[in-house]
Amino acid sequence: MPSYRLTLSYDGTAFAGSQIQPGQRTVQGELESALRRLGGREFRTTFAGRTDRGVHAFGQVVMVNVPEWRATAGDLERALGARLPGDVAARQVADSDPAFNPRFDAVWREYRYWIVRGLASPFLGRYAWLLRDGADAARMNEAASILLGTHDFASFVGGGEGVPWSERSTRRHGTTRTLLRCAVRHLELTPGPGRDTDAAALEFRIAADGFLPRMVRNIAGALVEVGQGRQEPAWIGEILAARDRRQGSEVAPAHGLTLWRVGFPGDALVDE
Amino acid sequence: MPSYRLTLSYDGTAFAGSQIQPGQRTVQGELESALRRLGGREFRTTFAGRTDRGVHAFGQVVMVNVPEWRATAGDLERALGARLPGDVAARQVADSDPAFNPRFDAVWREYRYWIVRGLASPFLGRYAWLLRDGADAARMNEAASILLGTHDFASFVGGGEGVPWSERSTRRHGTTRTLLRCAVRHLELTPGPGRDTDAAALEFRIAADGFLPRMVRNIAGALVEVGQGRQEPAWIGEILAARDRRQGSEVAPAHGLTLWRVGFPGDALVDE
Repeated sequence: MPSYRLTLSYDGTAFAGSQIQPGQRTVQGELESALRRLGGREFRTTFAGRTDRGVHAFGQVVMVNVPEWRATAGDLERALGARLPGDVAARQVADSDPAFNPRFDAVWREYRYWIVRGLASPFLGRYAWLLRDGADAARMNEAASILLGTHDFASFVGGGEGVPWSERSTRRHGTTRTLLRCAVRHLELTPGPGRDTDAAALEFRIAADGFLPRMVRNIAGALVEVGQGRQEPAWIGEILAARDRRQGSEVAPAHGLTLWRVGFPGDALVDE
Repeated sequence: MPSYRLTLSYDGTAFAGSQIQPGQRTVQGELESALRRLGGREFRTTFAGRTDRGVHAFGQVVMVNVPEWRATAGDLERALGARLPGDVAARQVADSDPAFNPRFDAVWREYRYWIVRGLASPFLGRYAWLLRDGADAARMNEAASILLGTHDFASFVGGGEGVPWSERSTRRHGTTRTLLRCAVRHLELTPGPGRDTDAAALEFRIAADGFLPRMVRNIAGALVEVGQGRQEPAWIGEILAARDRRQGSEVAPAHGLTLWRVGFPGDALVDE
């Protein structure tokens, strides 16, 4: 059965999230519409991660299964390049084992959240949270390190919308997840395409075996509270221990968040 | 009479150009709509440069004149920040001499055009021309240097739409313009907000006392012909000498082009 593994990159601005929903423009909806125009009648697409409305992706992984096709991965890559809309691109297309399931086989996911201080920029404002006041990276890292390892993240489950990323994982582990990376670093941005100015950005990188709905945005919002001095770093530990969403902070906006990469067995979470 | 000098940054993707047009979403239309919501009834806005549909700007300069106001520049900056849509931002607002006219007082304009090779990227593809095949910067620079200085650019006037940037300048000089800069360089792009991958970009920088309609995109299109080996560098000189638009190449797409900066008397065209 012809099966393909796609690496998708998309600008989430104009999508109501990744997952197909009737009457909404979604990434899965656009992908399946392109597959239908390519002549697929019977097909199945499975995404490694579900992204909310407005969230971007650089390395979303999708399994595409089209029983009636005999197209090569190269054929499919070229065909999708011509048929997908401009805000979503299949960066890689490879033949796949039909048993591959990116949702259940993923062993980690990495997200990045960008924060830029004090700028009015229509370019950076599309992909980063623009804050009037700066945030202190050292304070944020002190707080972030408290979250590393295995914890019950019930306090960081957010806002009612959607279901957990991996239902199987949720059934198995409830709201417990293992954070492999949770750190903030400085990033110097230089002018160029889509960058109207020099800017000092904070890049928050977080990787885990799985994420709960809105978990990254809830953590990012709490870290900014600490970074801007409204809370002490130890407050993050208090939220975590409370296991109660109502203890948390405001959720950080969707447009600052990007699904960066998905790891499968054998993929190392390298520092890049 | 209260007058303000604005520096505007905008993502041109969703605009039918800078200049107000009935029934179209334009940058000037959005700015004037924000001024009306701020209580301005009698006002005038003058742009330094006219940008076509889909062309971006980092440093567009606009004079705003509102006879009935007594707002400070700071008031106006905050008010516009709250009322302008997300794809246009007033980066700087300053008090201005009422006699300032950015269109006629500008002594140079600089544009940048970005070219990225062989990538399917919904992020870079918004602000750069994505080409399957690479282009040789040294060949492009050999061709570009032929255009430096004062020449009749009739061969590079494009496509019927709009009127020349500065009508006064056109009446005075016809299709003759003086190019102060016309060069290509390599730019390394690193991942971050709105950058999904490492990429080698070519940055084409062009500055002149004024530009004819589509002139930058016609030159960029011709330079790519040379850079990809379909024409020799000297061919640019032949096009220039012909003074006939039909001698030229395909016009490069609007989304790769950005109005970078506008210079007024005393502003040096520095290398940055």
